[in-house]
Amino acid sequence: MEFNPFLKNIKTYESGKDIELIAKEFGLKEVIKLASNENPYGVSPKAKEAIINNAHLAYLYPDDTMSELKQALADKFKVQKENIIIGSGSDQIIEYAIHAKLDHSKAYLQCGVSFAMYEIYAKQLGVKVYKTQSLIHDIDELYELYKKYKNDIKVIFLCLPNNPLGECLDKTQVFEFIEKIDEDCLIVIDGAYNEFASFKDKNKHINPQELINKFINVVYLGTFSKLYGLGGMRIGYGVACKEIIDAFYKLRAPFNVTNLSLKAAYAALNDEEFIFKTLKNNFLQMKFFEDFAKKNKISYIESYTNFITYFFDEKNSTDLSEKLLKKGIIIRNLQSYGLNAVRISIGTEYENSRFFEEFSKIF
Amino acid sequence: MEFNPFLKNIKTYESGKDIELIAKEFGLKEVIKLASNENPYGVSPKAKEAIINNAHLAYLYPDDTMSELKQALADKFKVQKENIIIGSGSDQIIEYAIHAKLDHSKAYLQCGVSFAMYEIYAKQLGVKVYKTQSLIHDIDELYELYKKYKNDIKVIFLCLPNNPLGECLDKTQVFEFIEKIDEDCLIVIDGAYNEFASFKDKNKHINPQELINKFINVVYLGTFSKLYGLGGMRIGYGVACKEIIDAFYKLRAPFNVTNLSLKAAYAALNDEEFIFKTLKNNFLQMKFFEDFAKKNKISYIESYTNFITYFFDEKNSTDLSEKLLKKGIIIRNLQSYGLNAVRISIGTEYENSRFFEEFSKIF
Repeated sequence: MEFNPFLKNIKTYESGKDIELIAKEFGLKEVIKLASNENPYGVSPKAKEAIINNAHLAYLYPDDTMSELKQALADKFKVQKENIIIGSGSDQIIEYAIHAKLDHSKAYLQCGVSFAMYEIYAKQLGVKVYKTQSLIHDIDELYELYKKYKNDIKVIFLCLPNNPLGECLDKTQVFEFIEKIDEDCLIVIDGAYNEFASFKDKNKHINPQELINKFINVVYLGTFSKLYGLGGMRIGYGVACKEIIDAFYKLRAPFNVTNLSLKAAYAALNDEEFIFKTLKNNFLQMKFFEDFAKKNKISYIESYTNFITYFFDEKNSTDLSEKLLKKGIIIRNLQSYGLNAVRISIGTEYENSRFFEEFSKIF
Repeated sequence: MEFNPFLKNIKTYESGKDIELIAKEFGLKEVIKLASNENPYGVSPKAKEAIINNAHLAYLYPDDTMSELKQALADKFKVQKENIIIGSGSDQIIEYAIHAKLDHSKAYLQCGVSFAMYEIYAKQLGVKVYKTQSLIHDIDELYELYKKYKNDIKVIFLCLPNNPLGECLDKTQVFEFIEKIDEDCLIVIDGAYNEFASFKDKNKHINPQELINKFINVVYLGTFSKLYGLGGMRIGYGVACKEIIDAFYKLRAPFNVTNLSLKAAYAALNDEEFIFKTLKNNFLQMKFFEDFAKKNKISYIESYTNFITYFFDEKNSTDLSEKLLKKGIIIRNLQSYGLNAVRISIGTEYENSRFFEEFSKIF
């Protein structure tokens, strides 16, 4: 059977193995996953309660207006419901952005290394990718590249802070940059980890309301997968002017998130105790990873997220990751990004101590 | 901001209002929803238990290999895991089928009135739609139309049984039809309600294994939204030869279903008591809707599903639906399909009696 020719260029995404499979394969009693930047403190207790209390309603299709959650987000950000779209993870809003603005004759721009899904979705449409030489966001180089190819570039992704490297631009840099970009170019501010960056340093905070009041060509993305502990529920959101949201809505399939995800996200949004605990412990534990790196002369970039990335000179990241895996510790090898580096999610105190213990033996 | 021109032709899907909103709007204590063909007996108890027992794991990304559920489906259908893809509802597999085979230069074929999502997804790509004059599946007319436009038609949807009309082709008719279609044309057998049809009449049963062993150009779609009581969890599946599944996999975003949906679907698959109860009661209750129609001289098509469609001559379906809505009973008006008809989901004994009570007053 013949399929559309563009499918030939798409590589099927191969996901990591999950905890149960690893445990079985290596005969392990305990597996510690520090690979996907999930919340090490689990699900927001309020969200868990909402899931359990609504489990009996799982037979009903979701309320596709999603007005309860949209209103809660609108209130939080002091915007209108019409400025919000809910996605199956913020990933899905990335997909909408690419499909709404790009095709094989156009391009998007990102820094040298950023969230892999931008490129995966773009390749599905044969969209060209421009990346800076700089791995991290270099605002001048981004602008130089934009100027050079501005006829092609119709989307720019800024990942603030950046996954998988961890650095973060200041808000003032971001706003100054956007000022210089043509209004027909859509700028996607991926704020999946922005709550972490904002907690560490107020200068990194992006306020969606301020952003969309000032710019008509920007969408801010947020997720419930990280801070709110709902990685498994596949729910995130976009905030933008109504014109952009309306365009994205045309690409949305009805019922794109589950009813329990809507209920869980709504509950998690107000779980302030859990949010504070997560943020505070994250940076307390981050310190141990920084100290460990210094002590062992491992290069790292200061991280504004819930993970840290270690760069190696002589040691090989694939080798290290595989050795750790056999000990029941999963971290993310960044070979596929062309880096001899690993990304380690900041876990609980116990999980981190197990990582340091096993990593010390092999490093 | 300019968006891709094809967006101009897409109408945003407007969903029905949900129970809570209706109750609030009309100040109703009780709202009965017989509009979306959900399972009136609620969630499969085993699935509900799985959701509650796994709620604490909602912070972990889903196992993207989905091997547990895929193996269970493979065992059920006596096929290989490689023959299965899981979607966010079987809707998503419809989307993959259209995106894998069609673009604005091609067409798909369906009967006069069938599941609305086929056309919605097709219009997103500017795909041409051929429909038979016959509202229900007329296998001869489908073949005549196919022969006439076979250079354009690269996908055929057969909805067995058909939503929203309820009729169902026999398996032998379906197999004879597929024999005559070119192997480069993908035939999608939408079996969302096929368990209901099979229960009523064995001749309607489509066995996915038999289907894919015989034909390399067919995909069978199933869902957990109806019989298994998981409409809110957004999970369905496709069964086809490996070549088709591989092509669809290229279009799949990672983590396209939630981890709780995977757990719930796995549990529901073996909830035989619930499945039997649902099927048996559905057709016991269907009888009351047939009797009511006969008594009131309302035309209907014999239904092989969990809903029944009433056609009106003098009365107006919009008027009737709105009057019922104010009484707290939601049914599906089929005006948007160009029909002066309503689709009523078969509810519980109590729900149905309430429908008859209120409908008698206004009809």
